[in-house]
Amino acid sequence: MPELARRRPGQSALVTARQEQDECEILSGVFEGVTTGAPIALLIRNTNQRSADYTELAGVFRPGHADYTYERKYGRRDWRGGGRSSGRETVARVAAGAVAKLLLRQAGISVRAGSVEIAGIRAEVFAWDEVEKNPVRCPDAFRAAAMADAIKAAAARGDSVGGIVACEAIGLPAGLGEPVFDKLDADIAKAVMSLGGVKGIEFGSGFAAARMLGAVHNDAMLAGGRFASNHAGGVLGGISTGAPLHFRVAVKPTASIAQPQQTIDTQGNPVTIVVQGRHDPCIVPRIVPVIEAMTALVLADAWLQHRAGARL
Amino acid sequence: MPELARRRPGQSALVTARQEQDECEILSGVFEGVTTGAPIALLIRNTNQRSADYTELAGVFRPGHADYTYERKYGRRDWRGGGRSSGRETVARVAAGAVAKLLLRQAGISVRAGSVEIAGIRAEVFAWDEVEKNPVRCPDAFRAAAMADAIKAAAARGDSVGGIVACEAIGLPAGLGEPVFDKLDADIAKAVMSLGGVKGIEFGSGFAAARMLGAVHNDAMLAGGRFASNHAGGVLGGISTGAPLHFRVAVKPTASIAQPQQTIDTQGNPVTIVVQGRHDPCIVPRIVPVIEAMTALVLADAWLQHRAGARL
Amino acid sequence: MPELARRRPGQSALVTARQEQDECEILSGVFEGVTTGAPIALLIRNTNQRSADYTELAGVFRPGHADYTYERKYGRRDWRGGGRSSGRETVARVAAGAVAKLLLRQAGISVRAGSVEIAGIRAEVFAWDEVEKNPVRCPDAFRAAAMADAIKAAAARGDSVGGIVACEAIGLPAGLGEPVFDKLDADIAKAVMSLGGVKGIEFGSGFAAARMLGAVHNDAMLAGGRFASNHAGGVLGGISTGAPLHFRVAVKPTASIAQPQQTIDTQGNPVTIVVQGRHDPCIVPRIVPVIEAMTALVLADAWLQHRAGARL
Amino acid sequence: MPELARRRPGQSALVTARQEQDECEILSGVFEGVTTGAPIALLIRNTNQRSADYTELAGVFRPGHADYTYERKYGRRDWRGGGRSSGRETVARVAAGAVAKLLLRQAGISVRAGSVEIAGIRAEVFAWDEVEKNPVRCPDAFRAAAMADAIKAAAARGDSVGGIVACEAIGLPAGLGEPVFDKLDADIAKAVMSLGGVKGIEFGSGFAAARMLGAVHNDAMLAGGRFASNHAGGVLGGISTGAPLHFRVAVKPTASIAQPQQTIDTQGNPVTIVVQGRHDPCIVPRIVPVIEAMTALVLADAWLQHRAGARL
Repeated sequence: MPELARRRPGQSALVTARQEQDECEILSGVFEGVTTGAPIALLIRNTNQRSADYTELAGVFRPGHADYTYERKYGRRDWRGGGRSSGRETVARVAAGAVAKLLLRQAGISVRAGSVEIAGIRAEVFAWDEVEKNPVRCPDAFRAAAMADAIKAAAARGDSVGGIVACEAIGLPAGLGEPVFDKLDADIAKAVMSLGGVKGIEFGSGFAAARMLGAVHNDAMLAGGRFASNHAGGVLGGISTGAPLHFRVAVKPTASIAQPQQTIDTQGNPVTIVVQGRHDPCIVPRIVPVIEAMTALVLADAWLQHRAGARL
Repeated sequence: MPELARRRPGQSALVTARQEQDECEILSGVFEGVTTGAPIALLIRNTNQRSADYTELAGVFRPGHADYTYERKYGRRDWRGGGRSSGRETVARVAAGAVAKLLLRQAGISVRAGSVEIAGIRAEVFAWDEVEKNPVRCPDAFRAAAMADAIKAAAARGDSVGGIVACEAIGLPAGLGEPVFDKLDADIAKAVMSLGGVKGIEFGSGFAAARMLGAVHNDAMLAGGRFASNHAGGVLGGISTGAPLHFRVAVKPTASIAQPQQTIDTQGNPVTIVVQGRHDPCIVPRIVPVIEAMTALVLADAWLQHRAGARL
Repeated sequence: MPELARRRPGQSALVTARQEQDECEILSGVFEGVTTGAPIALLIRNTNQRSADYTELAGVFRPGHADYTYERKYGRRDWRGGGRSSGRETVARVAAGAVAKLLLRQAGISVRAGSVEIAGIRAEVFAWDEVEKNPVRCPDAFRAAAMADAIKAAAARGDSVGGIVACEAIGLPAGLGEPVFDKLDADIAKAVMSLGGVKGIEFGSGFAAARMLGAVHNDAMLAGGRFASNHAGGVLGGISTGAPLHFRVAVKPTASIAQPQQTIDTQGNPVTIVVQGRHDPCIVPRIVPVIEAMTALVLADAWLQHRAGARL
Repeated sequence: MPELARRRPGQSALVTARQEQDECEILSGVFEGVTTGAPIALLIRNTNQRSADYTELAGVFRPGHADYTYERKYGRRDWRGGGRSSGRETVARVAAGAVAKLLLRQAGISVRAGSVEIAGIRAEVFAWDEVEKNPVRCPDAFRAAAMADAIKAAAARGDSVGGIVACEAIGLPAGLGEPVFDKLDADIAKAVMSLGGVKGIEFGSGFAAARMLGAVHNDAMLAGGRFASNHAGGVLGGISTGAPLHFRVAVKPTASIAQPQQTIDTQGNPVTIVVQGRHDPCIVPRIVPVIEAMTALVLADAWLQHRAGARL
């Protein structure tokens, strides 16, 4: 699956050197190369997990990780690589999203994302076809280099950085989304916020809209159902307008850093730890295909519901 | 219901002068003053709707509203006051949230929110007990006055303004939230994004986290399961940490403004409209209790699930 | 709503003399006589409840009723007329089913049911247009009279009788139902078993199939996708075959009888009670439209899902 | 997993000689022998499928099977052994049910089932500890032999037989089930009806209740919350009473028979087929643990909900 390769570690010097093959086995739902209508079960085994890297972490709670909350919620936890709260679980989301993208393609809908800010460096050019040409997946080739440098600089200090991903879906018909509770933007917000490391999401002008005047923010309508602007981000009242769906996602700096940190052990005693292992100093480039995948899954559902309700 | 009074229009000169009585009738689920376990159905009739205010809008799509998307999705729409996409539907959310708050109170959990930015004016003081003392529901009494002035100034121009609401839940045990898809922050994001006018949400440091270094963003842990800081906003890996849950919500400027706007009619012809009627120049103060209510509903569900899973 | 009149009490000498007007108010979802796509909320108030009839039952558990289980589950109960476990709640199901029937009509699907056994007297003729012509809703006019006599005889003894309802849906396309868990027959079984007084359901040959040989039970297929017989009852592998969907429902004798019965009070003390009030000696005739309604609701959902999945 | 062995083919001369090893791999949710709270994913591969047995069936619709409905619903089908409509999918249900049984055991709840009628021969003795001692899983050792003979006789003719399974859960507290739509019996009916070959279900006296008088059917209550009889089958108003939950399930004769049958091919042309392969002449003995499993899964869910709602 080409989509899996986009998420895979070891793609560049910027990301973790862990080798994960991400071989994807189709367990069900496909017969003679075509879907059968049965659920599609995909299996991707974790082949390169070095438990030894994590053994010493079994008894402590890493800051910024879910170690403490899993322990408190479940009374125990799989401490190898973060267990279920590990970023590795997102490989399944990308695999599922690849199937959703195939469905959306038939409807003329496509989804694309890119890193528009890393370590405070913002993209000023939005050339989507640049995204896969640089290791930070930035649509601005010039700032991409600066972003890569910033990541290396943080790594050299044993530190990490975060950033912002922009995502866009085009080709959407007007009418997707099920108000008042299952609005299209609400469903996407839930799907994207369910990713580890995501701390915020905004649609269209988002937080900047909070500072705009209504006369500026309102998108005037033009003949043909087009809009003179897209401050709304392609959704009004929780239903797609037909304009590009646009949103931005805040990604925190990687929690695993190679600096001494203050924390406690499972007995509650203060300890200082240095997290070993091979970690991305910035997960933004690798979360790009994951955000696309979650968006594709929500849109595929919305599109199927849309078909069910199409007027007779 | 006192909660309903907080959302109700006509509370001050800043908000719509529509008189809505919001009388709440309990249809089921309560017997002799106590819940029976049956669903609680509440009925609040819309008593002061002046259809005449909206008649001329039946044939046009108001910019910034859901008129166009409802028409495209359903093939027709109830054009009186925006129909189901009207802010009036939130009265039901506040009523349901009031019940959820009663449940949470038994668990020692409380939820509170306030306007921390309006028209670009930011609160610098966070005194939660100030919130209900000023008409903009700002925890900073000094900036509250400036915010009120900004709203009046926008209204005088026939324009509108937006802002940011902060919300906090305290008393949460560690362990609420169901990863990996039904994370606590993901569920709250969906619930809050389902409100009309909300364009973004961020937890803890949120979008600012995207610019932090990992060593700064990670919250060090202290003895007793406490945290030296709360950049995470009270949630790690989608599970509550026991620290206060904290998030911020971007609210767009009111779409209904008293200025001529360019749009189209239902036949697709360009027209200029001026939206009549009695509209809030800023919905931020009135959305505060609605955000609290949606948060309370999510937390009540999470807390019930938590009880089901409590270790035997 | 004509459907409501079919369920209403007071239709004949055979059923309870309670006068229930069943006035149905449409609270939402309809504008200018047409659905808007918003949820359709219907309100039917309980206008003729005589609490006095039930006061003396507040402290005892009526045999065959849910008094004891509600008390144990919820710690309290609304003892007026059985509260939520009363057959009166089915009026809402009939109202909702009437809407589902309108949808199904557009798809050429219809649902009909009738009493095929009461007090052990079985219908031998299945003339569906007879059903609404006799008070027991039996498709066999001759046995209908015997059934009515049996009900009167039971009532005269202060006793009650049960029976069997057959239900059929015609015009279904092949392909409805979502295996392996949401099979069409499984969904209907759940919907119908959720009715008070229903103790069993069987599709096609049902329990009789357990005694057939495979060579007899298998329905041979004929050109055009027709079947030589319909032992399957119109469903194979949980998916509609296109043949009539056919199932039968076992209904217990009314629990409220005018004879002394042994039970306990809420303190656990043995008591003998005689249930007062106006009760049907047989609920079979009145449950007929309720079973139709639940079936229509399931089929409407299945049909909408079917449309979503229609091949592109 | 011992539960899997109960469902597995090749247990006796009465059932299919197919060798299925049913090796169960735990993919997730267990760490160091204990559940972690993460979903438990189990993988059981189909190792002994002889596609060649089915090749000639690719173009025809076997009577009594879901071949035709899958083809009509999905436009194609996996014709190897019935694909997803094969009885082999129930191995996953048994595996999941084994986990549910572990949970229920902690709550003191157990589930057991047995064949109480095969080929019209009825058990008259209900000694549950006999069930695993005879190949038909009958609680009546004497009739078990007659049932086995009947199965062999049907097989010798190239035919098949069906039967009835009784299932019972004991140790249930009063209060399980969520009326009015998610009643305990409704949920179990759906779960059990979702099994291939099941054509009916009845609780307590079931269809026989339809012929009883109310004075006989009502279960009198005794001190201590016990019942003098259990015609209700352990559920009143959709909530468990605390008495044993009891229901019976109708199982049709195996659809695959070694006799010529009339059907059509995928082009709609009439053909006569003889189904080859190794098929059970009676699936009743092997469906017993599957029915237990589905019941255990529903009860485990109900019990967790019950815990969530326990009074504070």
